[in-house]
Amino acid sequence: MKIIAEIDKMRTYAKIMKKNNKMVGFVPTMGALHGGHAALIQAARKQVDIVIVSIFVNPVQFGPNEDYGKYPRNIKADEELVRSAGADVIFYPKKEDVYPEGYSTYVGVEGITERLCGKSRPGHFRGVTTVIAKFFEIIKPDIAYFGLKDAQQAFVIKKMIKDLNMDITLKIMPTVREADGLAMSSRNAYLSPAERRDAAFLNKALETARESVLSGERNSKKIIKIIREIISKATSARIDYVSVVDTVSFKDMARVKNGALIALAVYIGKTRLIDNLVVDITGKASDGEKKGKRRALQARA
Amino acid sequence: MKIIAEIDKMRTYAKIMKKNNKMVGFVPTMGALHGGHAALIQAARKQVDIVIVSIFVNPVQFGPNEDYGKYPRNIKADEELVRSAGADVIFYPKKEDVYPEGYSTYVGVEGITERLCGKSRPGHFRGVTTVIAKFFEIIKPDIAYFGLKDAQQAFVIKKMIKDLNMDITLKIMPTVREADGLAMSSRNAYLSPAERRDAAFLNKALETARESVLSGERNSKKIIKIIREIISKATSARIDYVSVVDTVSFKDMARVKNGALIALAVYIGKTRLIDNLVVDITGKASDGEKKGKRRALQARA
Repeated sequence: MKIIAEIDKMRTYAKIMKKNNKMVGFVPTMGALHGGHAALIQAARKQVDIVIVSIFVNPVQFGPNEDYGKYPRNIKADEELVRSAGADVIFYPKKEDVYPEGYSTYVGVEGITERLCGKSRPGHFRGVTTVIAKFFEIIKPDIAYFGLKDAQQAFVIKKMIKDLNMDITLKIMPTVREADGLAMSSRNAYLSPAERRDAAFLNKALETARESVLSGERNSKKIIKIIREIISKATSARIDYVSVVDTVSFKDMARVKNGALIALAVYIGKTRLIDNLVVDITGKASDGEKKGKRRALQARA
Repeated sequence: MKIIAEIDKMRTYAKIMKKNNKMVGFVPTMGALHGGHAALIQAARKQVDIVIVSIFVNPVQFGPNEDYGKYPRNIKADEELVRSAGADVIFYPKKEDVYPEGYSTYVGVEGITERLCGKSRPGHFRGVTTVIAKFFEIIKPDIAYFGLKDAQQAFVIKKMIKDLNMDITLKIMPTVREADGLAMSSRNAYLSPAERRDAAFLNKALETARESVLSGERNSKKIIKIIREIISKATSARIDYVSVVDTVSFKDMARVKNGALIALAVYIGKTRLIDNLVVDITGKASDGEKKGKRRALQARA
């Protein structure tokens, strides 16, 4: 496995691979890798010839009072995970090469970035789309892989690819969870043992919401209330938002429909965690009409 | 020569050319083509294998009170000019394909877009960089050609290419002028005969400024005063700005240096015209030190 730090070398490598008709897959990360990242890399390994993983803690997607400085960094452990997940290259650029002095160009998706996490984190998604647009230009991947855990990020990138006519296929992969259901996240490392126990309430609440939807509940307010009530049992939890939204507009939906995103952001102590589920009511002709077949709700790309 | 309207067909064509190791040159235009555009196409013809010219009046670069509706459109005449200048393809997309319903992604260069034309035309350059970024994604040219007449546009695109790591070479070509020195522009068609005579004062003023610089004047204020005085002789003229700026930051320069941009925007009646020159004081070690060799100031990329 190669580790490439220089942007020009990364570009040249990717160009040569494409010249040789290799399909290139790209997994952008901020490092502090976990099982969710491993799953993305493994998925890419199965589908493309060359798997490139970027590790870059992107300063422009952090707000002034956020955790850029303390965001976990552990390149040695990351290297091991990427190697054993089967990638070919780690792209590990320096901050001053990605954003040289006088840097001033930004890519922004409007509308959907102002809701949910975008509301609590102004400028966050603009930072994400900018760095991803840059890395797409350098690597020119055929397929890029994102996790559904960061659902809004994935759908914002999807919108950017569509709007800017980027010739890239986006794959959104299911959230990978710990044994107790907590969505894997680099930020879980911030949690104290007590907070770690509280954090499990997030998925518990979403699972209860899932059951409620599968039992026929379609009123978003009621679903949100169920989730809020469960999370309020966790003493260290403070809810940022719980929402039922459409994945294209990210606007609130009064009624839960197939494909709706039930998303939440919750502070556990000082750590802001997010999680979600995409509603999948299969076998039902329309809301509450048939009570026949129902499959489990699944994360869908 | 092909005319391609569909974005997917344009992408496929360009991809096939690149697969066959053809170098692709791209000349983006808004149509209403003139000798300036012809010069860009001819330059491309000499340097690349495949020359693609886009014709698209880009709505998002026009302000609400600007001339989007009345901007000259004449595809038949444009087709003739493009053909005789030697291009291979006209890319002629529909507005609703470039900006489908719900479109919401924008590429913006900050700082330099807020000055000169950007100050008078808020949002203009964001519209330009967005559409150019899109067309670059569709065509993936090796070289893109822009005219120095729209100097700020060219330098903004240059900054976007650099900041977003686009793998594209930018060529900025000299301004092409009418016999009396007026810079060729699609907007010259708006001028009445009297206004057309007044418009010639713009280049006359710039030429006088050039002479003054070559005679040793380095005080920007004095240069600007010379220009303003000459233009004020044109009764239909109303100056928007006359500035001496650095081509990287677009900040005002107190003293004229080699490579400085002397730029102006002037309303002739209701028509807003722009022109400029890039200072080229060759053979001079530093400001006013040697009065030896001096070449004519030339437009430089």
